[in-house]
Amino acid sequence: MSHQESLTVYLAAFVAELVHSGITDVVVSPGSRSTPMALVMAEHPDLKVHIHVDERSAAFFALGIAKVTNRPVAILCTSGTAAANYFPAIVEAHYARVPLLVLTADRPHELREIGAPQAIDQIHLYGHHVKWFAEMAPPEKSDEMIRYARTLCSRAAAIASKAPAGPVHLNFPFREPLIPQLDENLFNIIERPKGYVKVHTGDLTISNEDIEQIAQRLKGKERGVIVCGNLADHQFAAAVNRLSAILKFPILADPLSQLRSGKHGFDNIIDTYDTFLRNEDAKSHLKPDLIIRFGAMPVSKALTIFIKENPNADQFVIDGGGRWRDPANLSTDMIFCQETVFCNKLVSYLNDNSSLEYLHEWQRVNAITKQNMTKVEKLKELSEGKLFYQLAELLPEGATLFVGNSMPIRDLDSFFLNNQKNIKVMANRGANGIDGTVSTALGAALYSKSLYLVLGDLTFFHDLNGLIAAKKYNIDIHIILINNNGGGIFSFLPQAQHPKHFELLFGTPLDIDFELAVRMFNGEFTKITDWDHLQLELEKSLQSKGLQVYEVITNRDKNRDEHRQFWQSVSQEISEFVKGEL
Amino acid sequence: MSHQESLTVYLAAFVAELVHSGITDVVVSPGSRSTPMALVMAEHPDLKVHIHVDERSAAFFALGIAKVTNRPVAILCTSGTAAANYFPAIVEAHYARVPLLVLTADRPHELREIGAPQAIDQIHLYGHHVKWFAEMAPPEKSDEMIRYARTLCSRAAAIASKAPAGPVHLNFPFREPLIPQLDENLFNIIERPKGYVKVHTGDLTISNEDIEQIAQRLKGKERGVIVCGNLADHQFAAAVNRLSAILKFPILADPLSQLRSGKHGFDNIIDTYDTFLRNEDAKSHLKPDLIIRFGAMPVSKALTIFIKENPNADQFVIDGGGRWRDPANLSTDMIFCQETVFCNKLVSYLNDNSSLEYLHEWQRVNAITKQNMTKVEKLKELSEGKLFYQLAELLPEGATLFVGNSMPIRDLDSFFLNNQKNIKVMANRGANGIDGTVSTALGAALYSKSLYLVLGDLTFFHDLNGLIAAKKYNIDIHIILINNNGGGIFSFLPQAQHPKHFELLFGTPLDIDFELAVRMFNGEFTKITDWDHLQLELEKSLQSKGLQVYEVITNRDKNRDEHRQFWQSVSQEISEFVKGEL
Repeated sequence: MSHQESLTVYLAAFVAELVHSGITDVVVSPGSRSTPMALVMAEHPDLKVHIHVDERSAAFFALGIAKVTNRPVAILCTSGTAAANYFPAIVEAHYARVPLLVLTADRPHELREIGAPQAIDQIHLYGHHVKWFAEMAPPEKSDEMIRYARTLCSRAAAIASKAPAGPVHLNFPFREPLIPQLDENLFNIIERPKGYVKVHTGDLTISNEDIEQIAQRLKGKERGVIVCGNLADHQFAAAVNRLSAILKFPILADPLSQLRSGKHGFDNIIDTYDTFLRNEDAKSHLKPDLIIRFGAMPVSKALTIFIKENPNADQFVIDGGGRWRDPANLSTDMIFCQETVFCNKLVSYLNDNSSLEYLHEWQRVNAITKQNMTKVEKLKELSEGKLFYQLAELLPEGATLFVGNSMPIRDLDSFFLNNQKNIKVMANRGANGIDGTVSTALGAALYSKSLYLVLGDLTFFHDLNGLIAAKKYNIDIHIILINNNGGGIFSFLPQAQHPKHFELLFGTPLDIDFELAVRMFNGEFTKITDWDHLQLELEKSLQSKGLQVYEVITNRDKNRDEHRQFWQSVSQEISEFVKGEL
Repeated sequence: MSHQESLTVYLAAFVAELVHSGITDVVVSPGSRSTPMALVMAEHPDLKVHIHVDERSAAFFALGIAKVTNRPVAILCTSGTAAANYFPAIVEAHYARVPLLVLTADRPHELREIGAPQAIDQIHLYGHHVKWFAEMAPPEKSDEMIRYARTLCSRAAAIASKAPAGPVHLNFPFREPLIPQLDENLFNIIERPKGYVKVHTGDLTISNEDIEQIAQRLKGKERGVIVCGNLADHQFAAAVNRLSAILKFPILADPLSQLRSGKHGFDNIIDTYDTFLRNEDAKSHLKPDLIIRFGAMPVSKALTIFIKENPNADQFVIDGGGRWRDPANLSTDMIFCQETVFCNKLVSYLNDNSSLEYLHEWQRVNAITKQNMTKVEKLKELSEGKLFYQLAELLPEGATLFVGNSMPIRDLDSFFLNNQKNIKVMANRGANGIDGTVSTALGAALYSKSLYLVLGDLTFFHDLNGLIAAKKYNIDIHIILINNNGGGIFSFLPQAQHPKHFELLFGTPLDIDFELAVRMFNGEFTKITDWDHLQLELEKSLQSKGLQVYEVITNRDKNRDEHRQFWQSVSQEISEFVKGEL
């Protein structure tokens, strides 16, 4: 049996199984050692092969596709530092629970650790940041090894997908010559043509006895809040709303909980807590004795502090992924159960008998804060806070809103309020990096109707290379670039009090004309002059195609002052209200 | 004792020791968790702090400084994916043996693996690709802990520097608040003010008995070659020349051996072997029975094949780093000894009694090949091969020539011949990636008189962000951008025979107007029209400042044909010569 035949049949079996496992997209970076896998992938009629020269961007691009489709996406690169460039996106995928199949080509065993070119130690290359690593056997054409290749593929895809989802790494040793034998019978697999082994996997579900005990503990608790962080399950919104309705507990909904936008009811959904929980009177007025938390820890620092300041409250943390999500180290009950299942089960054990009083207090404070948002709305000059306040109005129905980390996600949290537009909100909140944001959004845009990315200039710069995908694949994306020439968030941190090294180490202005970058990638660049201009451009955006970048220039110092003035003024009104209540 | 005092004193001790350990440069990426270290570093009068927003480029920039200065360079970033972005440069530093001190800020222990923001598992983050990892103790101000911080720093710098040099990773847990107390007494260290512990470390040296035995084995061997790959030691050129002179063995000098340019003699230095070892007649005519190899495996594939085809030759591999550098798996003797020491010791045991015949055959074949290079010189249109042939003439005395991987390093090997201009040749040949090339060259340019970077369009694109350093620090660099719109090397590989997916997977044209990118970073962009124009521009380059990019547009297919025609025509002449000799 020839080397070429072994290579071809083994890889054809693997790639066929990729498709059987539900994988539709692969992102490939050019390279020599990965040639056989790349060629076999390109031959498969049901696999979309996306090419991305920069492996760092490539992996984030795959992450974006996986986030939006909820399917694992495969990435393929050659040996050496190419594979090391995947690391940031793998770390993000691990913590954000996004399924990725990382396929790296490697030198065969006899060419490792002997100074051969492009050979690095790829065994467990990503350490603890993948759910599973397997060093694949060298390609061989025997029934046993073909079954092995198919089983490994199916198994890897299942591990990547099951909760908590995440990246899996398979390392492939390939000997030269690297060219497989491509013909029309390549994927003609006779034994079990519809896939080798199907993995049936369930959700974490706690027992009815456990649920009943939890229901017992909820009895008589009137001062409870439900906190919802980043969560991907589409059925969760309805389930948690039912839970809230029966318990009469307010839902503090992080923008990434997907609860602030949709066709569900909003009565119990508190959307301005990031603003009013900065106020001491509100915090003591709304003191809870029970906290039920779902999903990742919310973005809001004010909320985190509020939780920390209530160490005596019972705190239930529900995690369907079975991980420990308790940065305040204050949970009383860690509940490893699929979140929607938990809500539905719990509701069946509860009686609708709680008082509405505590809920109403939250609703009143929320309403007052919302009224005060008009202060932001009235700002005449371009402002970061107002931008996010207006987005709910400006974006079209069913849009996807992807936000950069650092300031944008925080402003989104503060100013993007409940709306019925079914706007899906996305961000890279696994490790909260600014890297790879452009590429992740572009990957998501491939499978979204109309995607708007809002990000700062440092974040845009960090992943400038990612824009090549927009050019190459004519991806429709609208990027609102908040350009405050540097790191805006640092103006809010204590180091802003120490001007000596501030601009050097933290402000870090780039002084870049981004129009040139956008033109380089065949995009259209528009410098926004005022609010009317922004509105006009976003209206036009419904028709526009390809890469569109709208630059909104702001000032870091002014932005900080605006935020502080707003918080102070709202705080005052909230204090007056709370004191009037007492 | 206050938290702030502990933080300040502990870090001041560490940073003072950095300087005592000979570190002059740190590359810092902005972030919040790394604030205390960044501020203390910025306070030190003897530390140059370079700011780089993109951590991937930042680490390569540091690599470039370390390569040129032969001193460890420290890099500092915040927690999370920021640290993961360092990975490609760390892998390169590990295999290229370049000292780096990787300092990552981390959340303190109580905020790890509990869903806290920006917290990832940073313990052993870079796996086997660092020489040493240490999780630093939380900052504390006691005599014992200050000694500990100073010792760890000194120890880390020594480990990074000693052969084989490489990266060391220290992970720092920092609790909030993160602002140290900066005053004029910050570095006023009373106990051992000139550094805590000095590390005395020696070179690997084999015994005189071993050397004598090796000398015995060389007796009567007349058909021996010395092969020199990438090696950093400045004293090696003279030492290996003496060894060659006494043994009468030709030196096959890789461009990165630094032997092809300088004031030493060139009589025994063979510089065109990559061309003539493609010829079967030359290979059998020049068959060796002994090979002495120094440094990394050379770039030339023709030479690698030549070595593989002589499995019966004794092969001595000398490595002062004590690693196993034998990709052909054909060494008979693995000699872990500092290379210059080995040459000098061995010479003292040898008698000058070998025949000159075999050396003369190499010299003759080399001379014929050189004559044939005029065929390349005569090319009228812009060509990649001729560009490298001309560089020795066009570059100024004492220039540094940094070449990109993939095709440029191979063309350099084929066409950049012996010269007396003291041109230092650099490339990233640890893992041979195309990533980070721009940044490494910029780091090197900081400490070089006149640096010329020659690279292809994919390599330029991959690290486009790196150009921000040129803009920010007004670095003088001359970049010759060979733009063949895609991956030129693949046209030489077997996949070029399979046109079906070739352009999609391997050609990967970017279709980018790089002038826009260069303007974005305040550089000057010149499109080279012909050879006279190139010569004129490079003459002008002696006076020009800042970022200069000269774009040389070539065609991938035509380039492949030109190379093949040249090799064929030379091959014919060599065959005729060899047959005439017999």
